[in-house]
Amino acid sequence: MAVRSVEATRAEDTRLLTLDELRAQLRAVGEERYHHKHPFHLMMHEGRLSRGQLQAWALNRYYYQSIIPVKDSIILSRGPDPVFRRAWRKRVVDHDGDATNNNVGGIHRWLKLAEATGLRAEKVRSGEGILPATRFAVNEYLNIVRSRSLLEAVASSLTELFSRDLISLRMEKLRQHYPWLAGGLDYFEARLTQAPEDAKFALNFVHENAKTRAEQELAIQALRDKCDILWAQLDALYFAYVQPGWPPPGAFRMNGEES
Amino acid sequence: MAVRSVEATRAEDTRLLTLDELRAQLRAVGEERYHHKHPFHLMMHEGRLSRGQLQAWALNRYYYQSIIPVKDSIILSRGPDPVFRRAWRKRVVDHDGDATNNNVGGIHRWLKLAEATGLRAEKVRSGEGILPATRFAVNEYLNIVRSRSLLEAVASSLTELFSRDLISLRMEKLRQHYPWLAGGLDYFEARLTQAPEDAKFALNFVHENAKTRAEQELAIQALRDKCDILWAQLDALYFAYVQPGWPPPGAFRMNGEES
Repeated sequence: MAVRSVEATRAEDTRLLTLDELRAQLRAVGEERYHHKHPFHLMMHEGRLSRGQLQAWALNRYYYQSIIPVKDSIILSRGPDPVFRRAWRKRVVDHDGDATNNNVGGIHRWLKLAEATGLRAEKVRSGEGILPATRFAVNEYLNIVRSRSLLEAVASSLTELFSRDLISLRMEKLRQHYPWLAGGLDYFEARLTQAPEDAKFALNFVHENAKTRAEQELAIQALRDKCDILWAQLDALYFAYVQPGWPPPGAFRMNGEES
Repeated sequence: MAVRSVEATRAEDTRLLTLDELRAQLRAVGEERYHHKHPFHLMMHEGRLSRGQLQAWALNRYYYQSIIPVKDSIILSRGPDPVFRRAWRKRVVDHDGDATNNNVGGIHRWLKLAEATGLRAEKVRSGEGILPATRFAVNEYLNIVRSRSLLEAVASSLTELFSRDLISLRMEKLRQHYPWLAGGLDYFEARLTQAPEDAKFALNFVHENAKTRAEQELAIQALRDKCDILWAQLDALYFAYVQPGWPPPGAFRMNGEES
């Protein structure tokens, strides 16, 4: 019966989704696998992480932050026209900064956060001690924007649809539980406005450029894969610096697998 | 003091290592971070893994096995001459098989092992349920052989220097603790002779082609990175299907880090 209903769904699946339907499907992916539900974040928001665990988080996520403008430069290099590239270039500026506008950029702001946890910026920048699993997950983001279609590369950025809510909550909880971190939150402050602007552009691009339902499904899958990249980074942190174990959403489960 | 002695070591580090010294340094990397010491393997060899855990292992490692001839084809495509390519081509044949010689190949043999754990070959081949962290780690192997020098790409294969001992032990322990798996061990049987042949060729290649100590160090680092790729796959398995947490060798440790 389950199999038949899947087939029935598939039969309808050739119809192009409207913008609202596409947004709803993308949001459903976020509800299932965005890292706001990861136990490492839940612990952070409940004030249950130690300073050392917050250091491990700031250090490892620095690697992610540091490749974001590389990732966006790859997309920039694949951009079809000046209008697209002008819009996308904003992202590189957001993270790398702009000397003339006195904008230090997101990477610098993340280093400030790492310093607020008690790490030395030079040590963080060196990458020493970052978990291999962090590198592998983050490098996969580069693989995706290099090797898939531009549509999928753009769609993989759409976790920004979900980040504003998570960042708002995080800022409140970090201030509440770790007041000594309060001076390091500029990164998040900036993202509160940057991320929604970027998400809006990317969502419209995906809607306008996915000409078939199959292309829309590829875009949705790219978002799913991006969520896995974020989730795996927290798994690695949790495994190395906190405890227990469970498979991420969608992964092999031991019970009921043997049929 | 510690810093001075590091500098003293570095000052001597321009001297080219002999073949024996190079082999010794590569073996030291294996002693530190090859996955023979990973708790998931220790549990396997002590008979403490459940059938479901062995399934998770066979399923996830299938992804690794399936990209090995892709990885070797990339190296083949970068090979400098027919002599190198003829030697390296053997690896692609070892894994993909050869219809005329009635050699089914390593990928097929791994599927037999997965079937012996109770999984369906078709399901394993589909890749469904493989941990994202497995894909990220394995894809990093492709990144390395694509983006680094040929010397480093070849050196990253040198975990084969260590695999014979691990495979001998594993076959003995699998037969002892999981006799129902005994019919699925052809993959390991074949690797007992293939891996040492391949390691010998690769070691000589690295020795002959690393013209400076700096190049030798890059080759050693490539082996270290490859070990991390293997280790991270078992971390992901352990985290998803077994338990606790500890950082892999060389990674950030929470205590003593804040200095």
